[in-house]
Amino acid sequence: MTIEFARRSHSLIPAEPGKPYFIEKGMGDRAHLFGDLFTIYAGGPQTENTFNFFTCDGPKGDIIPAHSHPDTYEVFFVTQGAVRLFVEDLEGEQTEKLLTVGDFGFVPKNCPHAYRIERHHSQIVGVAAGPGGTFERFFETLGTDTDELGLPRRPYVPEPQKFGTVLQQYDVTFLPDHQWRTGS
Amino acid sequence: MTIEFARRSHSLIPAEPGKPYFIEKGMGDRAHLFGDLFTIYAGGPQTENTFNFFTCDGPKGDIIPAHSHPDTYEVFFVTQGAVRLFVEDLEGEQTEKLLTVGDFGFVPKNCPHAYRIERHHSQIVGVAAGPGGTFERFFETLGTDTDELGLPRRPYVPEPQKFGTVLQQYDVTFLPDHQWRTGS
Repeated sequence: MTIEFARRSHSLIPAEPGKPYFIEKGMGDRAHLFGDLFTIYAGGPQTENTFNFFTCDGPKGDIIPAHSHPDTYEVFFVTQGAVRLFVEDLEGEQTEKLLTVGDFGFVPKNCPHAYRIERHHSQIVGVAAGPGGTFERFFETLGTDTDELGLPRRPYVPEPQKFGTVLQQYDVTFLPDHQWRTGS
Repeated sequence: MTIEFARRSHSLIPAEPGKPYFIEKGMGDRAHLFGDLFTIYAGGPQTENTFNFFTCDGPKGDIIPAHSHPDTYEVFFVTQGAVRLFVEDLEGEQTEKLLTVGDFGFVPKNCPHAYRIERHHSQIVGVAAGPGGTFERFFETLGTDTDELGLPRRPYVPEPQKFGTVLQQYDVTFLPDHQWRTGS
């Protein structure tokens, strides 16, 4: 699976696959989406569409919209702060768990999930991939790419018409009527 | 690709794929190999053989033996301490880079590489996978699985006869005559 995207000129990810590379902290390909900063360090073009690797930096905030991925498994590994992960299994059983530094959460394909960042300056390391490929350019496509190094100064809220076209292309199913009954 | 392994009874990784799960810091499937502690949080059985996710905790020490992976791409993301990554590209050009917290290194398949942990209490987050599958059980197969939570009290040195059988099965090519000419 290949998704076309305009490769930014400042990227430190080599254009040609097969090249080793290093990227210093924070210097991956960056995007703002709502209040968060997403930074991509590797993706499908580097790994023969096997996996990607990115970080999400965010402030303490609201729970994100519930969603699922028909073809993507997702890792949440907290490296700073605290993040509450909400997930529903394929039988409809819901769980939530506060993850702090070093804690890990795993969301299989088709499982509804969401998270809420519970401390300022939190960071999640993510891997999101499956047999159908990787979808790391979702963040800059629904959001906006940026040269800035920090969080958005104001939340970047996508135009409503962007959602319909972007979500399916990047294996995201939003679940607007989903209710979390886990209590937090 | 499926590799059989004896699943330990204490594992917090669900036996059946498709289940969401959480693992608190340090509580993944653990193995000792030489002076390091490897902790697996997800692998091929959870991701339809797409990717894995593990940590390597180690003390300041010597450079590990140079090796390459014919079919595996590898991520090094430092979350504690400092690690010097050595890598050679497919044209033979060698680079080394000191990675500290938040820094990232990427090693494509077939690229010789090694690392040296340069501070005590360092931790690397790793993803090692490719189109042929994932190989996260390498560490406990060449090394030894453990219920302990810390570093090996004494380095676990595998029996020499283990190397030949284990390495090829887990997509590892050791390069005993390899020389790093990068100067450190």
